[in-house]
Amino acid sequence: MEKWKRSARMVDMTQRLLDHPYTLLPLTTFAKRYQAAKSSISEDLAIINEVLANDGSGMIETVAGAAGGVRYIPFYKEERVETVLDEICEELSNPVRILPGGFLYMSDLLGKPQLMRRIGKVWATVFQGQKIDAIVTVETKGIPLAHAAASFLQVPVVIVRYDTRVTEGSVVTVNTVSGSSRRMKQLSLAKRSLPEGSRVVIIDDFMRAGGTVKGMQELLKEFDAEVVGVGVLADAKSEVRLVRDYVSLVSVLEINEEAKTIVVDRGNALLKEEVEMPK
Amino acid sequence: MEKWKRSARMVDMTQRLLDHPYTLLPLTTFAKRYQAAKSSISEDLAIINEVLANDGSGMIETVAGAAGGVRYIPFYKEERVETVLDEICEELSNPVRILPGGFLYMSDLLGKPQLMRRIGKVWATVFQGQKIDAIVTVETKGIPLAHAAASFLQVPVVIVRYDTRVTEGSVVTVNTVSGSSRRMKQLSLAKRSLPEGSRVVIIDDFMRAGGTVKGMQELLKEFDAEVVGVGVLADAKSEVRLVRDYVSLVSVLEINEEAKTIVVDRGNALLKEEVEMPK
Repeated sequence: MEKWKRSARMVDMTQRLLDHPYTLLPLTTFAKRYQAAKSSISEDLAIINEVLANDGSGMIETVAGAAGGVRYIPFYKEERVETVLDEICEELSNPVRILPGGFLYMSDLLGKPQLMRRIGKVWATVFQGQKIDAIVTVETKGIPLAHAAASFLQVPVVIVRYDTRVTEGSVVTVNTVSGSSRRMKQLSLAKRSLPEGSRVVIIDDFMRAGGTVKGMQELLKEFDAEVVGVGVLADAKSEVRLVRDYVSLVSVLEINEEAKTIVVDRGNALLKEEVEMPK
Repeated sequence: MEKWKRSARMVDMTQRLLDHPYTLLPLTTFAKRYQAAKSSISEDLAIINEVLANDGSGMIETVAGAAGGVRYIPFYKEERVETVLDEICEELSNPVRILPGGFLYMSDLLGKPQLMRRIGKVWATVFQGQKIDAIVTVETKGIPLAHAAASFLQVPVVIVRYDTRVTEGSVVTVNTVSGSSRRMKQLSLAKRSLPEGSRVVIIDDFMRAGGTVKGMQELLKEFDAEVVGVGVLADAKSEVRLVRDYVSLVSVLEINEEAKTIVVDRGNALLKEEVEMPK
């Protein structure tokens, strides 16, 4: 292929853009690669943008100027966010998920790569426009969610650990009290994993009282980090609530072990006021 | 959009195919969606396939028959696999990674979502053609690698844990001895996380003697699972080697704490004989 046909060009450009969200690609790179005029490339990009808009799955942003170019901003329109939230609600409402003690089994959900991709795009929608340097999560179940979000927001993932390993180097450790079980926990983060003064989003799988997230906020203070958002896949009712300003995709309202029923509803993710809710 | 222009159709089809690797999409679905003849759709698919082939990043496979359709098979041509391996070698050779005791810091690498996507596609290349039901990994650092692979191979991820949590339900636990440190470890897997008789690939970040992988193999026997492949991001020299049949992307040959040098080379991933190496 020397001079590309338009149809082939469309495929290649689409692939390149979708593979590199939030990455500025100069028009000249495309023009050279396809041996095409910049005006043709611009027309192509307009078509890609139109298809994404119709699909409700993102947009192509044009950045003007000498250092300009185009970049793919991934997000879902509200209707598609709702579809993903409802899918999670339906999955989590399945009574086979009830474990002895009224706990909820959700490891299988977090193991589904396609669902994780969709949820990652929902997070990219929720935190779009924030200037984020990193996503912070805690082992173990938050990791797939954090990575899914990071792959769309194009930022690194930093993992807080419950234990300290020799392969992490120097770590900063805080002690935190779980709000629901009143147990002490240690949270550690490798010193070299996060530059001082970073703007971060915390992502985790489940929040009851919020003790773990609260502990992560404390730990992140030691790194002079600014927590610009907190997102959890699911929250649950709790008498104590240590964290007020967070986004949940779904809310587990009731788990009835005897009646074998689980009630799950959409969380606060779509109520934008909630997201900006003052402490 | 009612009847789609070809250029818009190319964008939409590309997006749909790339978003759903290994998923059979019937031609009729495309024909209906775009109000186009099946013959036109077939031509479009041939173009997409050609672009992927030129890019060395996968193919569109046609499945004939009534239940037929097309699906995207993601893989890299050898040259692109080499590029990814060399990128990892270069990253890991950086002497700032040396930790006290001669350990290697690599958590930051595992936190890079774009690199994880590329490595995931390398795993999809290595294990292409295997009939896999699930990818099994062990917390914590194997998780991003396992999810990256799973998103291209379109299979669920199952996570072996060092501790047992109430949110996992009944678990099966084995005791295993770390080959290098001779420490005892417990490995647990939730009973409901893996159906009996599954064909699985084990993915982990680092292997020295292979005690953890060996333990996972023992654990998986309890699930009647067949381990059809083992892949590690990096292996290192070890006097003891408990696992012989595995694929490594890179090999850490030497870490010299005094001289502050690390020697890393490509692993055995490209030596196909090694992959099929008899025990």
